[in-house]
Amino acid sequence: MSEIGEFGLIDRIATLAETTLPAVPELLTGIGDDCAVYSPSAKLLQVATTDMLVDQVHFDLLTTPLRHLGSKAISVNVSDICAMNALPRYALISLAVPDSFSVQMVEELYQGMSHAAKEYGLAIAGGDTSSSRSGLFISISMIGEVAEEKLTRRSGAQPGELLCITGSLGGAAAGLKLLMREKEIMLNHIENNESYQRNVMADLQEYREAIQQQLLPLARIDIIRFFHSRHIRPSSMIDISDGLSPDLQHLCRHSNVGAMIEEGRIPIHGSTRRIADELQDDALTWALTGGEEYQLLFTIPKEEYRVIADNKAISVIGETTDRKEGVQLSDIYGMKIDLSSIRGFDHFNQ
Amino acid sequence: MSEIGEFGLIDRIATLAETTLPAVPELLTGIGDDCAVYSPSAKLLQVATTDMLVDQVHFDLLTTPLRHLGSKAISVNVSDICAMNALPRYALISLAVPDSFSVQMVEELYQGMSHAAKEYGLAIAGGDTSSSRSGLFISISMIGEVAEEKLTRRSGAQPGELLCITGSLGGAAAGLKLLMREKEIMLNHIENNESYQRNVMADLQEYREAIQQQLLPLARIDIIRFFHSRHIRPSSMIDISDGLSPDLQHLCRHSNVGAMIEEGRIPIHGSTRRIADELQDDALTWALTGGEEYQLLFTIPKEEYRVIADNKAISVIGETTDRKEGVQLSDIYGMKIDLSSIRGFDHFNQ
Repeated sequence: MSEIGEFGLIDRIATLAETTLPAVPELLTGIGDDCAVYSPSAKLLQVATTDMLVDQVHFDLLTTPLRHLGSKAISVNVSDICAMNALPRYALISLAVPDSFSVQMVEELYQGMSHAAKEYGLAIAGGDTSSSRSGLFISISMIGEVAEEKLTRRSGAQPGELLCITGSLGGAAAGLKLLMREKEIMLNHIENNESYQRNVMADLQEYREAIQQQLLPLARIDIIRFFHSRHIRPSSMIDISDGLSPDLQHLCRHSNVGAMIEEGRIPIHGSTRRIADELQDDALTWALTGGEEYQLLFTIPKEEYRVIADNKAISVIGETTDRKEGVQLSDIYGMKIDLSSIRGFDHFNQ
Repeated sequence: MSEIGEFGLIDRIATLAETTLPAVPELLTGIGDDCAVYSPSAKLLQVATTDMLVDQVHFDLLTTPLRHLGSKAISVNVSDICAMNALPRYALISLAVPDSFSVQMVEELYQGMSHAAKEYGLAIAGGDTSSSRSGLFISISMIGEVAEEKLTRRSGAQPGELLCITGSLGGAAAGLKLLMREKEIMLNHIENNESYQRNVMADLQEYREAIQQQLLPLARIDIIRFFHSRHIRPSSMIDISDGLSPDLQHLCRHSNVGAMIEEGRIPIHGSTRRIADELQDDALTWALTGGEEYQLLFTIPKEEYRVIADNKAISVIGETTDRKEGVQLSDIYGMKIDLSSIRGFDHFNQ
């Protein structure tokens, strides 16, 4: 790294970032000045978020390809933008890179970022790069836009509306458990001086889907585009990056409503259940508290059900209720469980 | 930290951030949803930047009060906004906090940030908080606004214009050297089991100014307000966070001009020279390559000199020249030195 220096690295990064610029002509100045400069779209509101990925907290480089990590760092921010019913426009990328990293490793990380940015149609507009005396640290800030009449907050749900979720749940947690198991096997092999086939993904082909949900999650920009094309504005929305249970509680608290969701309606992929059986773990717990799911949880009035009914990526999992009913899960036996008694994912309490 | 958890900490941070909100009524949603939401001012361009401070790279907690560090993290971003002749509006703050930190320590850091934000008139609109398995990481992104006719880039200088700098230079480097010396003394005392007066600032009263420039630099928002009140638009501008010499070279490269600056005109504070003498170091080298100066370097046509002449915070240090003249320093003996031969500050080559 020290051979090409900070400015040499910035030049290489700028070249990769440039490939993302054609998508957003409103960006007047990208990397290369003290700030990025852009012209906000007339009559649209701006939304802004920031999300970071920290070495040994959010990822383990032993089991994480750098391209995937770069892509994920973009996706987790896009997911927050989507949760406002907005579309992403600009990203600012801060990297603190350990001295042990080669220039090629930083470029791989950045290739993942610029590839994802192009998929989502946003421009990498700026950033900051530093060395790190310890692990890799990725912090991304993202700016999006939304018409005022489309803006969707956590706070708009009314009692008696449908609670909907996109995609299927529990896969990211299943993938993480598999990778942790694989890492242990690998470390044991190394300790015993045995050979180990390094390409983790190839070894785990049968678990491909779950591992992909952990390493390479995609933000549900497809759902936002669907909403916009159908003129749907959910009454409230949140992305469930902390897990369905804690994020449902956030949404209910902000909207001052309760909720009743049904276990039998929570979408859990067959492969996730199979992995849970194999690991003697519980797929429902993963689905409720696993975290790192970048699906959208939203509410719509019952009379609008027909406009989303044909979208197979959306499942109705329950209803909002009066605040005093609390946030509950009705299990497959009809028993009611208070979700506030189940702990979610907390980066200070792992 | 784990006692109050991630969400408990976010609540405390949100309370501190709230005190910054009255300054910017265009912020419609601050901390508490998936994104911040704001309404861009009509007809203004948006500018965005991100700057991070990394443990053991940009600061040493042994010699840095947390309140100062919080304030500095805001100031370094405001400085980038000012370098576009823009005013700061919104900040997003990402913190990765070591497990050894108490809640009170995070609050102190945040108090410094919210105090600085209020001074600059910007709103803390959002952020992300995580634990860190190693040191403290602070990454801040900032959004500002500027009228198109005021926007100032690095690239607008013409040959034959005046090169101007704000404030005085070399103080931040002097402060850093003093703090490093003090740290060594402290560690020696600890090693020898001798007592040590912990309050570094009190012990170093006579060096107060230099240490303050290192620990608590202020962005030159006063200069931007002066420009706006006098309807001055510099032809080019950059903040010299990398140091006068490298940032002058950046400005010249972007503007496709050369430069000749005069040693005798570079503003170096008397106390900085005294510290350099005491440490047997060179104040001019500090002023040229010290880095971490958050002063503004800008160009204006000669005929506009009269509109800045009465501002004592601005010094004319030379002129832009033809590109082929290179970027040169004329020393006090009239000798010309090619500045590209002097290395600046590089976080990968310390």
